[in-house]
Amino acid sequence: MGCFLKYSKYCDFPIENLPYGVFSTSSNPTHRIGVAIADSILDLSEISHLFAGPLLKNYQHAFKEPTLNSFMALSPSAWREARETIQNLLSVDNPTLQNDKELLSRAVCLQADATMHLPAKIGDYTDFYSSIHHATNVGVMFRSKENALMPNWKYIPVGYHGRASSVVISGTPIRRPFGQTLVVEGTPPVYGPCKLMDFELEMAFFVGGSNNLGEPISIEKAQDHIFGFVIMNDWSGEFLTLEFVSALSHPRILALPSPPWVVTTFALEPFLVDNYPQDPEPFPYLKHDDKFNFDISLQVDIAPKGSQVSTTVCRSNYKFLYWTAKQQLAHHTVTGCNVNPGDLMGSGTISGDTSDSFGSLLELSWKGTKPLTLLDGSQRKFLQDGDTVTMKACCEGDSYNIGFGLCEGTLLSAKS
Amino acid sequence: MGCFLKYSKYCDFPIENLPYGVFSTSSNPTHRIGVAIADSILDLSEISHLFAGPLLKNYQHAFKEPTLNSFMALSPSAWREARETIQNLLSVDNPTLQNDKELLSRAVCLQADATMHLPAKIGDYTDFYSSIHHATNVGVMFRSKENALMPNWKYIPVGYHGRASSVVISGTPIRRPFGQTLVVEGTPPVYGPCKLMDFELEMAFFVGGSNNLGEPISIEKAQDHIFGFVIMNDWSGEFLTLEFVSALSHPRILALPSPPWVVTTFALEPFLVDNYPQDPEPFPYLKHDDKFNFDISLQVDIAPKGSQVSTTVCRSNYKFLYWTAKQQLAHHTVTGCNVNPGDLMGSGTISGDTSDSFGSLLELSWKGTKPLTLLDGSQRKFLQDGDTVTMKACCEGDSYNIGFGLCEGTLLSAKS
Repeated sequence: MGCFLKYSKYCDFPIENLPYGVFSTSSNPTHRIGVAIADSILDLSEISHLFAGPLLKNYQHAFKEPTLNSFMALSPSAWREARETIQNLLSVDNPTLQNDKELLSRAVCLQADATMHLPAKIGDYTDFYSSIHHATNVGVMFRSKENALMPNWKYIPVGYHGRASSVVISGTPIRRPFGQTLVVEGTPPVYGPCKLMDFELEMAFFVGGSNNLGEPISIEKAQDHIFGFVIMNDWSGEFLTLEFVSALSHPRILALPSPPWVVTTFALEPFLVDNYPQDPEPFPYLKHDDKFNFDISLQVDIAPKGSQVSTTVCRSNYKFLYWTAKQQLAHHTVTGCNVNPGDLMGSGTISGDTSDSFGSLLELSWKGTKPLTLLDGSQRKFLQDGDTVTMKACCEGDSYNIGFGLCEGTLLSAKS
Repeated sequence: MGCFLKYSKYCDFPIENLPYGVFSTSSNPTHRIGVAIADSILDLSEISHLFAGPLLKNYQHAFKEPTLNSFMALSPSAWREARETIQNLLSVDNPTLQNDKELLSRAVCLQADATMHLPAKIGDYTDFYSSIHHATNVGVMFRSKENALMPNWKYIPVGYHGRASSVVISGTPIRRPFGQTLVVEGTPPVYGPCKLMDFELEMAFFVGGSNNLGEPISIEKAQDHIFGFVIMNDWSGEFLTLEFVSALSHPRILALPSPPWVVTTFALEPFLVDNYPQDPEPFPYLKHDDKFNFDISLQVDIAPKGSQVSTTVCRSNYKFLYWTAKQQLAHHTVTGCNVNPGDLMGSGTISGDTSDSFGSLLELSWKGTKPLTLLDGSQRKFLQDGDTVTMKACCEGDSYNIGFGLCEGTLLSAKS
């Protein structure tokens, strides 16, 4: 597939990717929908009239909206038609766009000149807990090796409701929060800044389409409701909670990548790999035999305050997840829970089975017992004020890569 | 305060109440904001030009919107000005509205002729767990009398993120959900319809105003962010979860009252009572000495399918809550979590200290060991298909009542 815009083999955004995002420019502050191509953005609001296929010709307004929600509300066939239309328009063989210099100048801008925004109005956010290595690590640390995995973990894709309001795009600095901590077991808690600040390496998918309250999305239909994926840092701080993970005292600030590009399931298809082996066999409402797992390389770097040198502290992969996104969605809705276009579903921390592939400092430093040494010689049990955490995700193909952008954020000191 | 519309002393909606809601009529399907007065609704979109006070004259558009979010985004002083303006307009001494027959006919309609809608676009929903009697009952049933309250319970107002998408207005039938249940400890779970469906008697407040991410709302400022209260049924079904209350497998469908009237904090002021005694003393960030607890009588009735006879199964009171709404909000944001106008904060099940004041069937039947006998002779451990649950809340004053409307819903059988 030749694109009339030129890029290198290692570009994150070839014509096979075409991730969606919402951007504005200094000359036009309107939030609008674009797709990343090479180092540029194709502004779909400027070419909405060119979506003239049977499924989109009556929905061109979806490309003129300030978020992706209306487009996400359409069907997978419509999303596919959009992808084919854009690939055609960018094709070296198609004169429509490349020869219309006036339209081209309006419809294409450099990513470097754009300000990115949240791609969708996120109605609800759910965080799953689907990495078997992560769940096992946490279980070993906080319970015991024998009872590492809770007995139900292999029956249900455990998930927690989260807060949509605190999803920010990356680049947003994160302030160390205050809260209550239990210092000595059996004594009253103390109030102060959170001591144990951590990153959590996650990916998440945006829901497409919707279901009515009381009408589950079957495992067979689940893929139709998975619009696309992003990388995500679930910044977390451990505080006193009734339970372990879920309560409010666990401040969660999610950073989507900047630019927050949503990579479609179509672009990921060439990187399908076998699902993680599941034993016991899941219940029929969760069982699917087709592949829905992806080979996506993940990496986390830490750069201390003022340092030019960042250290790669984790190399993991999306494929280590035990539960697939289809199983997450089928389980989420089996009770009749309704989902909406733009809902965000996090994977949970993605850890591999080797100690350099753990997706959080909690695991990498093994609860602080094995500090990491960064390239500048400093050590880390948990994050320090001023640390910048950068996450990357990329599918590495033989002839092209599919990139997700960078997810970056700096931890600020607690406000006194 | 005399109103030119007449009503009885026992009316839920006297001129001292003036709760806000969103409604439409068959002749005008536009969703618009109204206040309940007697058996009528005053349509604020028709009289927005009459909000001419210093704080509202430039915000009259807030009364022409399809939800209360913009109005909730204003300040308590603006809300107070709105209340005073409406009370003036309804006053028997004020000719503006009562003598303008044309405007009056446009601006007043019967509640019976209106269809009610959700009062706000709910961005995020949080459910607290603030009743000491409820938390103790659950602890005794599922742990032991000695360890009934988790050690942290008296230090933090425990809360859980919930899902905003499944908040519905009452009258919406609720379908018994499917999911996984643990039948015998130590054996694999089974999949099927939820057996233990329950109501949970709650109240909730809507957030007014907002805070920036990273900037907590102090306990001193918390009241400024509490717009008003509703009664709520947190329909719940127990399923297999990692933890007890919070995970996805706990299907929560919240029903707001129908009509879903939001009773303002102003209207509740005459019903302020002492806060629940707190020992140990809360941390300074949670401590307030002024009263912010309310004497609101609560009642739950069950009517079996086809029966004309409903049985009152619970009489409780909002004042039994251990943590105040101000403490809930200060704790929620102490980590820097941002809240937005229209966010909903549930109290958790409100139980008193006597066995007829427990706010759920789980407690009333003591985990099924003490079935209730309804007036038609049938017994209940948990809800049965076809049961209609009705909740009422009312402040009973010497010269007037402040009502909240009815919260009603019927449990449908699981879809096979």
